[in-house]
Amino acid sequence: MKKVLIDCDPGIDDALALALAAGSPSLDVVGITTVGGNVDLSLTTANALALREFLEMGNVPVTPGSAGALLRETVRATRVHGATGLGGVVLPTPQMGPSDGHAVDFIVDTLKAAPGEITLVAVGPLTNIALAVRREPRVVEWARELVIMGGSFTRGNHNPAAEFNMLADPEAAAIVFGAGWTVRMLGLDVTLSAMVTSDVLDRMWPLGKLAELLVPAAQFYGMVTADGGPAIHDACAVAYVLDPSLFTCVPATVNVETAGLYTRGMTVTDFKVSEQDANALVATSIDVKGFWELVLGAYERLAGRLG
Amino acid sequence: MKKVLIDCDPGIDDALALALAAGSPSLDVVGITTVGGNVDLSLTTANALALREFLEMGNVPVTPGSAGALLRETVRATRVHGATGLGGVVLPTPQMGPSDGHAVDFIVDTLKAAPGEITLVAVGPLTNIALAVRREPRVVEWARELVIMGGSFTRGNHNPAAEFNMLADPEAAAIVFGAGWTVRMLGLDVTLSAMVTSDVLDRMWPLGKLAELLVPAAQFYGMVTADGGPAIHDACAVAYVLDPSLFTCVPATVNVETAGLYTRGMTVTDFKVSEQDANALVATSIDVKGFWELVLGAYERLAGRLG
Amino acid sequence: MKKVLIDCDPGIDDALALALAAGSPSLDVVGITTVGGNVDLSLTTANALALREFLEMGNVPVTPGSAGALLRETVRATRVHGATGLGGVVLPTPQMGPSDGHAVDFIVDTLKAAPGEITLVAVGPLTNIALAVRREPRVVEWARELVIMGGSFTRGNHNPAAEFNMLADPEAAAIVFGAGWTVRMLGLDVTLSAMVTSDVLDRMWPLGKLAELLVPAAQFYGMVTADGGPAIHDACAVAYVLDPSLFTCVPATVNVETAGLYTRGMTVTDFKVSEQDANALVATSIDVKGFWELVLGAYERLAGRLG
Amino acid sequence: MKKVLIDCDPGIDDALALALAAGSPSLDVVGITTVGGNVDLSLTTANALALREFLEMGNVPVTPGSAGALLRETVRATRVHGATGLGGVVLPTPQMGPSDGHAVDFIVDTLKAAPGEITLVAVGPLTNIALAVRREPRVVEWARELVIMGGSFTRGNHNPAAEFNMLADPEAAAIVFGAGWTVRMLGLDVTLSAMVTSDVLDRMWPLGKLAELLVPAAQFYGMVTADGGPAIHDACAVAYVLDPSLFTCVPATVNVETAGLYTRGMTVTDFKVSEQDANALVATSIDVKGFWELVLGAYERLAGRLG
Repeated sequence: MKKVLIDCDPGIDDALALALAAGSPSLDVVGITTVGGNVDLSLTTANALALREFLEMGNVPVTPGSAGALLRETVRATRVHGATGLGGVVLPTPQMGPSDGHAVDFIVDTLKAAPGEITLVAVGPLTNIALAVRREPRVVEWARELVIMGGSFTRGNHNPAAEFNMLADPEAAAIVFGAGWTVRMLGLDVTLSAMVTSDVLDRMWPLGKLAELLVPAAQFYGMVTADGGPAIHDACAVAYVLDPSLFTCVPATVNVETAGLYTRGMTVTDFKVSEQDANALVATSIDVKGFWELVLGAYERLAGRLG
Repeated sequence: MKKVLIDCDPGIDDALALALAAGSPSLDVVGITTVGGNVDLSLTTANALALREFLEMGNVPVTPGSAGALLRETVRATRVHGATGLGGVVLPTPQMGPSDGHAVDFIVDTLKAAPGEITLVAVGPLTNIALAVRREPRVVEWARELVIMGGSFTRGNHNPAAEFNMLADPEAAAIVFGAGWTVRMLGLDVTLSAMVTSDVLDRMWPLGKLAELLVPAAQFYGMVTADGGPAIHDACAVAYVLDPSLFTCVPATVNVETAGLYTRGMTVTDFKVSEQDANALVATSIDVKGFWELVLGAYERLAGRLG
Repeated sequence: MKKVLIDCDPGIDDALALALAAGSPSLDVVGITTVGGNVDLSLTTANALALREFLEMGNVPVTPGSAGALLRETVRATRVHGATGLGGVVLPTPQMGPSDGHAVDFIVDTLKAAPGEITLVAVGPLTNIALAVRREPRVVEWARELVIMGGSFTRGNHNPAAEFNMLADPEAAAIVFGAGWTVRMLGLDVTLSAMVTSDVLDRMWPLGKLAELLVPAAQFYGMVTADGGPAIHDACAVAYVLDPSLFTCVPATVNVETAGLYTRGMTVTDFKVSEQDANALVATSIDVKGFWELVLGAYERLAGRLG
Repeated sequence: MKKVLIDCDPGIDDALALALAAGSPSLDVVGITTVGGNVDLSLTTANALALREFLEMGNVPVTPGSAGALLRETVRATRVHGATGLGGVVLPTPQMGPSDGHAVDFIVDTLKAAPGEITLVAVGPLTNIALAVRREPRVVEWARELVIMGGSFTRGNHNPAAEFNMLADPEAAAIVFGAGWTVRMLGLDVTLSAMVTSDVLDRMWPLGKLAELLVPAAQFYGMVTADGGPAIHDACAVAYVLDPSLFTCVPATVNVETAGLYTRGMTVTDFKVSEQDANALVATSIDVKGFWELVLGAYERLAGRLG
């Protein structure tokens, strides 16, 4: 059992990532924290709460965090995720509310309580993680690993240079990449390779109740994403935790641009570094077939449980 | 009685500011928090602890906070404050240690417990304040007022454009000025007017035990500061809380530069704004005579108590 | 006789500077070049042509140059100089047109023909000068001296950080200050001290035909300038050539900010440099009375000639 | 016959580009201008002169231009091109010297004399072109087309973000891309596809005297280039003029970053623009086989002439 704490901003692909986690018996989700990102914090929190119940994740605590970026004006991706953040998907109103407290404190306290045990998975803007690191630098040692969905070593999606999560809070990203750990970076370079093809969709349709989430989510996402199709970015980060061998990862120094006119939020990735100087392990390729076996297997397992 | 929470990085002028607070019966210091700034956090905390006892401030909690800037490399002012941060002053080793917990939490919790009552006085880099504001945005409403020593609407001291506290954490300063409150900014424009002249020094010499702090502090500071003399910058912020009428303050929009090649940390101050659009009240002149009456009166009162 | 080549963007205060030159027998104006600045190049050229005849400057060549900044979007100051660039002043239509060729070539060729003899006086954006320097680096050696009106070591006028001429082409200014000569910088710090007071105006009224230029120019300028009155900035640069002793000048390193969010075009002035490391002599004070004696004396002399 | 004016900084691949031009009877090289780039201007000019004679290009004028970047410190690529700029190649000392005058004037005058006829090919830093455009904006109309080797829409070579020619003078590149024409951009995205493979080398060996240039150049280049092999970047720009159909070109808006910490000189390329809003036609793929047929055919033709 690998323990994970998932910081997210659901978000369609966040939903698909949570479903992957929920359908993976080898993962123990010790908490979900939310951040303003794809849509406003109130919506990402509401979506996380609804998903927790819909996916029958039990009483995993859902703790809201930062509403906006550290320094920048807020950027949202409602164009991509719809006004609610879940495209056309409508989930039942959840019964349980969020936990008291703040995501930053939850992250600090949870990691502190089990040093070396918990993998931090961050699939939204890195505001909460940056604040946790600055509030308590030992978070870096306490985390077993930090795995993020974000960035790119080639081109962006929100603009030619920057991926959305990084652009949404460049200073937070710069703090996180500079904090002293080796960030596992699952960027557009791999996530855009894992498209929901029609073959994949064919395996989602029969999944009963779960299909009500997966299918419209993937379809909505596919229609609106400018980056070439329904890729389920955030699920790649969870998949990495489940099976790192699905990805080729290369040590690199990633500097997050905070000052450019056209390049803010770009993850400038230098591969010409020694492993010990690197601040990141950057995923450069993905075993697409293996990825979908992993993901669809988990979805089928979960569907069996949900009915 | 005005309640104040003092965030500081002692630092010589921080020491003189704390002495002013300690000698002012109309002030109730509800807490001291420390930040890395003039010197390292371990030293600013040690100095705050030593000063609390030397100045007989009772059991006012001293809570350490952020060791470094949000995003930038650390900048120190040991050239100005000496290796220990207190110039040549040697204080007795303190008996009491710091409080548990972190300055950011202390600030949030203390303000939350008494909304509208406590004035926040920040005389170091604004890292703790920025983290508190981002961790809990309601801090802005809960604080009675934020008074800072920092910035300038003309020239800097650490370099031609920037004052030290702002330069030491420009992003934190940008967060704080953008947080929605009206920052009371006591910058170099006024603090450099309040020099420790020989007349002032003459009134410090007879202050017994307190003189052992004040006189060498002022002398050391005077010898090394490049900005024209022994100004006791931080004391201006405490003086403002005690008697705002000592200062002329003008509404302004202050933008903190974070991107320049030569101007990072500059507080770009635009006075051509309406009062409601302003994000700051900027002190533009100081009643120097009244300031020293206030300060020296407090020192004499305190000296009487300390012996 | 001092030879000067005047690069300008008339502009009300440019007009008053040209009048000062025209009324100074010890100056030999070898050429006037124009640049887009206060108003568009077509207007600054038309104004320079009209002024040449109105001020009876003979056949001094007027050569048009750069219409816009090297890199930036155009900034204009029509708010300050009126739609025509000369406020409410209406001058007779000139009989002579501009010279063939381009200001940059004129500057290069003229300085080359008389190395060490000609003082370059630049009172607009520094686009032409920067292009000349990059087109022919030896311009720096050939010029006897470069005297500019521009910048400030405290605050700006177009915005809190930048003076108009520098803001209008920050990259050009950065090139010019970095070119290897010692720039004589007459900035707002001194120019704003030389106001057209009512006493000054009283001596302009009786100047016959010349008064038709001087008085409405000063009056218009006084009404619209936000920086505190009718200062005749550009005339300070010509006055410096005529009598440098009117100004206190201090060696400094001036770096022009090109990258800030709020500080582009700021002349960041560091006085803590040795004379040999300095790239500028920055005017820090002005003998106001002596300045007006010089200027009004020249105006009176010119008025006697013009009738 | 297509008339071309080639602005270059030889440079190994510049040499191979000039050889391509020299061997192409359908090209009329009306002039060569030089710029400091790969190596110092004195060397790029000396190399251009030596190449003109070695390649028997007749009396095509060679005119030196800008020694350094508009604004930045000089960056050189001697690591890649060797101390002389031509790797290990040693050419006979040329008999003819450079033309009088300056590259910027030569470009302006030559294009002016034949509006619409001459294609400008720029394969070094864009300093000369930028100065020409600012000195005489009509250059943009007079040029038949501007074809550059430079930039990339994915990753750089000199660092992760920037290609060398763009990094060497980002402000010049920004001026050129913003000047109003449609820049033909042959970037690393295509040039790195056109490697000197062993098959290619096999066809160079038998080329007699020309082989003395081609073979060691390609070999030296291949050993030292970090970007994956002996690509002959600059020859792509000449090949584009000879046969645009070898390249797929897509309209795009290219913004050159001038302000980033890690991204200066990056050509940020946005393909989501309409053709009329685009400022560039960006080559996205190359017919490698066709390219080498064109290039080797020209080399063989030239070799026959040179003996």
